[in-house]
Amino acid sequence: MEMQGSALKIVMIGAGNLANNLSLSLLNSGYTILQIFSRTENSAKTLASKLNTDFTNLYSKIRNNADIYFFCVKDDVIEEISKNACFKDKFLVHTSGSTDISVFSDSTSNAGVFYPLQTFSAGKLTSFENIPLCIEATNDESRTILLSIANKISKNVHLIDSEQRKYLHLAAVFACNFSNYMYFSAETLLIQKNIPLEILYPLIIETANKILYQDPKLAQTGPAIRKDIKVLTAHLDLLSSNPELKKLYSFVSDLIGKMKNDD
Amino acid sequence: MEMQGSALKIVMIGAGNLANNLSLSLLNSGYTILQIFSRTENSAKTLASKLNTDFTNLYSKIRNNADIYFFCVKDDVIEEISKNACFKDKFLVHTSGSTDISVFSDSTSNAGVFYPLQTFSAGKLTSFENIPLCIEATNDESRTILLSIANKISKNVHLIDSEQRKYLHLAAVFACNFSNYMYFSAETLLIQKNIPLEILYPLIIETANKILYQDPKLAQTGPAIRKDIKVLTAHLDLLSSNPELKKLYSFVSDLIGKMKNDD
Repeated sequence: MEMQGSALKIVMIGAGNLANNLSLSLLNSGYTILQIFSRTENSAKTLASKLNTDFTNLYSKIRNNADIYFFCVKDDVIEEISKNACFKDKFLVHTSGSTDISVFSDSTSNAGVFYPLQTFSAGKLTSFENIPLCIEATNDESRTILLSIANKISKNVHLIDSEQRKYLHLAAVFACNFSNYMYFSAETLLIQKNIPLEILYPLIIETANKILYQDPKLAQTGPAIRKDIKVLTAHLDLLSSNPELKKLYSFVSDLIGKMKNDD
Repeated sequence: MEMQGSALKIVMIGAGNLANNLSLSLLNSGYTILQIFSRTENSAKTLASKLNTDFTNLYSKIRNNADIYFFCVKDDVIEEISKNACFKDKFLVHTSGSTDISVFSDSTSNAGVFYPLQTFSAGKLTSFENIPLCIEATNDESRTILLSIANKISKNVHLIDSEQRKYLHLAAVFACNFSNYMYFSAETLLIQKNIPLEILYPLIIETANKILYQDPKLAQTGPAIRKDIKVLTAHLDLLSSNPELKKLYSFVSDLIGKMKNDD
């Protein structure tokens, strides 16, 4: 195989947010995007025109001379798509946090994972420079190739196996999806008193930035960690008309109250 | 009363993190800090020496010619301290998110609130410039004075009454204390697989920054909002040895799952 440096030829499977961001980033780093495949022809066409490359929505037209096939599709269709005969024994790489590398085992023994640990927003281009890239591969040569690509587009590259990646994805749900839900809960309460969420921005940003220099365990503040029963009781009273937020408040406060005892 | 501009004379009650940050900020804006009072003499002395001013730990020695007495003490001692005879009919101002302005009503009819909506860390000086300051007062003249001080040290000043402030403080618990607990939960999971929390920093910071341009309701991502039963089930399996985090995961995921139905 001659798969060195930017001579690598890539076919992108998918044309969503991640496919957009990743293929532009790869192109900017000198890699060749041979073709965009999407089952939705228009999506494939739109991305291909940005990259000035070929596109198709037909499996039979997928180019068979690529060095890597990057799967940037929803988790639950990776296996289904990869079982198409055109992918037989090719180097298949997915970009999913919650999918085992073995998803490709019926199609090929040469597989990899290239998981960018970041959220991508529609229409917004995100530089990969600071995005953690989690790399895994079924063999040394493929691992070397993926690491070399990863190091070319990001300064934050990690070897993470499928078992670790499952926990990482789960931890990201807590740290990101759930913290966003806490912001949403705060907004729900503020709306009741005509206060804009903007007033909490500096505190929210500082709380997130704090973890860069202080462990979250030591950074924990608020009435629950202080065991300030007077404030906890007053807060539960305020929540009497929001039974679900009241239950959430009680539950998380109880967990926080137990933090110190774990030392 | 002659209480205009920086001719104002202030006595600071308390010598903790907030008293340190606020009194230095006031001094830098040209206000006169007449004296630091703390029931712990050493704390009063340490802060007073930074400000090159007087200090005391005795109520009988508190200067009676100040224009404002700023209470930067724990919520549960504001009332107790303010009932001392030396504060009778003075202009008393507290800095607490969860305390009603009426806490001073036995001592004076001239009261105010000056609540900085930010966390202050020991030993770290924080500029007030971007900190939201929530102002309330029992009369127009005192409100004007507090607004003028607030606008001198911050660009982010709000009139917030006691009822609104209670909700604001509660919302801050969700947005900040609880999101920090989500970071801590993530770390708990990563430690089990020898993954450092650092790998989640970019995602955590981006999640917080996202609210600056997108409502948290629209910014919600993850398996729960997608109703991705396969991933949700896999995550609950991974959590089988952490019963409390499993319960938290289920509970918050259920609430997130209901978000779309509220539209």
